Amino acid sequence: MTQTIAAQATTTATFKSLKCKECGAEYEPKATHVCEFCFGPLEVAYDYDALRRTVTRETIQAGPNSIWRYRPFLPVATNNPIDVGTGMTPLVRANRLARRLGLKKLYIKNDAVNMPTLSFKDRVVSVALTRARELGFSTVSCASTGNLANSTAAIAAHAGLDCCVFIPADLEAGKVLGTLIYGPTVMAVQGNYDQVNRLCCEVANTHGWGFVNINLRPYYSEGSKTLGYEVIEQLGWELPDRIVAPLASGSLFTKIYKGFREFIEVGLVEEKHVRFSGAQAEGCSPIAQAFREERDFIKPVKPSTIAKSIAIGNPADGVYALEIARKTGGNIESVNDAEIVDGIKLLAETEGIFTETAGGTTVAVLKKLVEAGKIDPEETTVVYITGNGLKTQEAVQGYIGEPLTIEPKLESFERALERAQTLDRLEWQQVLV
Amino acid sequence: MTQTIAAQATTTATFKSLKCKECGAEYEPKATHVCEFCFGPLEVAYDYDALRRTVTRETIQAGPNSIWRYRPFLPVATNNPIDVGTGMTPLVRANRLARRLGLKKLYIKNDAVNMPTLSFKDRVVSVALTRARELGFSTVSCASTGNLANSTAAIAAHAGLDCCVFIPADLEAGKVLGTLIYGPTVMAVQGNYDQVNRLCCEVANTHGWGFVNINLRPYYSEGSKTLGYEVIEQLGWELPDRIVAPLASGSLFTKIYKGFREFIEVGLVEEKHVRFSGAQAEGCSPIAQAFREERDFIKPVKPSTIAKSIAIGNPADGVYALEIARKTGGNIESVNDAEIVDGIKLLAETEGIFTETAGGTTVAVLKKLVEAGKIDPEETTVVYITGNGLKTQEAVQGYIGEPLTIEPKLESFERALERAQTLDRLEWQQVLV
Repeated sequence: MTQTIAAQATTTATFKSLKCKECGAEYEPKATHVCEFCFGPLEVAYDYDALRRTVTRETIQAGPNSIWRYRPFLPVATNNPIDVGTGMTPLVRANRLARRLGLKKLYIKNDAVNMPTLSFKDRVVSVALTRARELGFSTVSCASTGNLANSTAAIAAHAGLDCCVFIPADLEAGKVLGTLIYGPTVMAVQGNYDQVNRLCCEVANTHGWGFVNINLRPYYSEGSKTLGYEVIEQLGWELPDRIVAPLASGSLFTKIYKGFREFIEVGLVEEKHVRFSGAQAEGCSPIAQAFREERDFIKPVKPSTIAKSIAIGNPADGVYALEIARKTGGNIESVNDAEIVDGIKLLAETEGIFTETAGGTTVAVLKKLVEAGKIDPEETTVVYITGNGLKTQEAVQGYIGEPLTIEPKLESFERALERAQTLDRLEWQQVLV
Repeated sequence: MTQTIAAQATTTATFKSLKCKECGAEYEPKATHVCEFCFGPLEVAYDYDALRRTVTRETIQAGPNSIWRYRPFLPVATNNPIDVGTGMTPLVRANRLARRLGLKKLYIKNDAVNMPTLSFKDRVVSVALTRARELGFSTVSCASTGNLANSTAAIAAHAGLDCCVFIPADLEAGKVLGTLIYGPTVMAVQGNYDQVNRLCCEVANTHGWGFVNINLRPYYSEGSKTLGYEVIEQLGWELPDRIVAPLASGSLFTKIYKGFREFIEVGLVEEKHVRFSGAQAEGCSPIAQAFREERDFIKPVKPSTIAKSIAIGNPADGVYALEIARKTGGNIESVNDAEIVDGIKLLAETEGIFTETAGGTTVAVLKKLVEAGKIDPEETTVVYITGNGLKTQEAVQGYIGEPLTIEPKLESFERALERAQTLDRLEWQQVLV
């Protein structure tokens, strides 16, 4: 795969510097993430003129079947990135879900099957660890609500980097096991994600480790832009009318937006107005609250929801997400835990896609917005599903019925089938024959 | 995606008939799987002359990013198959695992991230349900050890087909939940897979249902050929020197072989000798036993292993798998449950890929064969990983250590790290701070 990249990409980096999102101050592209002058977040700046001259749809299509086909738009200098096949997940036309909701043209961008650890985090971690290696780090780390821990541990294992991850101690069992299996050091912190994050900031300052979502954050977060690029390419080099995505820190949302703008900027796709809708769980909805109350600042909250992977009470990019929702004519909405479970089931039963609680939140918000008349049925809508349901099995246990237990005999099957057919499905799953 | 297919593929089917593998008798391509004359299994026959004239590497590459790029080699007539992005999973160059084992060129074909349900079964089910719809079935069914149930339920949900699946009652929790979520009828049979299978044969005869792995088996099993095609394409249109794959019914093995032979036959790849190595769990190894004892028949066994997804005591295609291993100069080997767990951990720690017990079996057999000098280190070897570790979490619980629990304070972290660094990793994971 990397040979294709070498042939396609320029041999030098196309990014120039880190630039403060607030005051515009520029920095060398090192492991740093906060502006020394105004404490604003740093973002990677590219040479778009060079990109316009060298990148075409054809050079992209000739690249590998992974996020690295967009390597000139990613903040690494190497032509030999860590490529485990991350990205290029399916964009599924969701006709049955669309009909159920009354929409005409609905797509699911399915990162529940992303490689290697079944969430969109594999994108950001592939970029962050490739950059970490370039910058000379031998130990990588992260503060995580679960998916990021899985991803950092797995990709560090593949790349042969030492790894230490920090998680809240109350995480879902599947996410803990799905981290330990790769052999990293796992620190289970007795506190919520925001406390884990604060501790990690201190560790980043005292140890020489590369924290993917702290001192490497400017590089890391750029990986999410590929979720924008891929949708454009998979729609046949067109933009959708609307996207619906979950909001945790708000970073994903802002980076999909940046990805869309970049492809317009360099002439890879025609300009189009895209509305941005964001989804939060009611039990941790600081951005949705600010949207509803028409505030331009975020009031931190204490998370209490089954959607742990998006339960960030003090979201770093919340204000930027808010701004994008407003200026695109989108919205930010929240749903409660029961609606989240229903969202998981709805997506599974109509489209055969089993997502985790974050995806249930997104589908439930889609449904709520359609029912409130806030999404035009004629719009081409793309829903981002960011993680897999096998990691949060606890959330749906008790809500999906049980198998019908039978003996290995035709008569036993026939009796079960007969009873099943006389009951509706939900009751039926609970019958013991 | 389907537009690309329509443009690329012929508009009529390229398969002609069903043909008995034993006596060669031909049948109309309907829902039937056993020869009326000799009771041999039926297989799909194609018009290879037509394929040679119409299919090129370029027509394939212009197709969708899924198994349906090989649509002319699959037994469906429609240009509008059920395409949920199944297939085109990564072929990962496994340098760290290769170094650990002493091999030079090792690849992992990673169906642990197959779409939509994270196992190779999504390939066979996509083909079977597309054919089922063509043949007019409205209810589809299967006898399953878990992965097939997940896949049938999910893809049936996407396609809007009624679904009833049969599983052994003692299946792993993740596989049961990962089926129920899609809303099918689930029959949990108090017996092993072979008993489930026998019951399903009776049900297939008495009800008008399409059982993907019984009356639709000739179509279904063809889906596995795509695991052969993709490896050829991903190796840059070359064959490997050896493959290692798990053996359950033996079907996967024979179909990878058929896929390789077909691409040679129609001129898509140059002829090369490929050795076929098969992996079984000691607790259910009827094919490995026959290989060891130089028998040409299979003695059925009663399964007792943690590798439930490959625990088929009476494998339908066992003798064909045996024949292929022998005639290619390959081998069939088995490993015990402890070796299977070690195989899962080895793959996770070196390559960042978390596989289920079947994959652990395959990696453990790879290791055993290398250590016994039965695989030449110079060979280009492809290992087929067929399912995801999140579905069989029980198998590794208790073998992967635990997180270090700390307070959200720098001192607590430093104490934990210090102790961790003085212990070796395995002990260290069990320390509570």
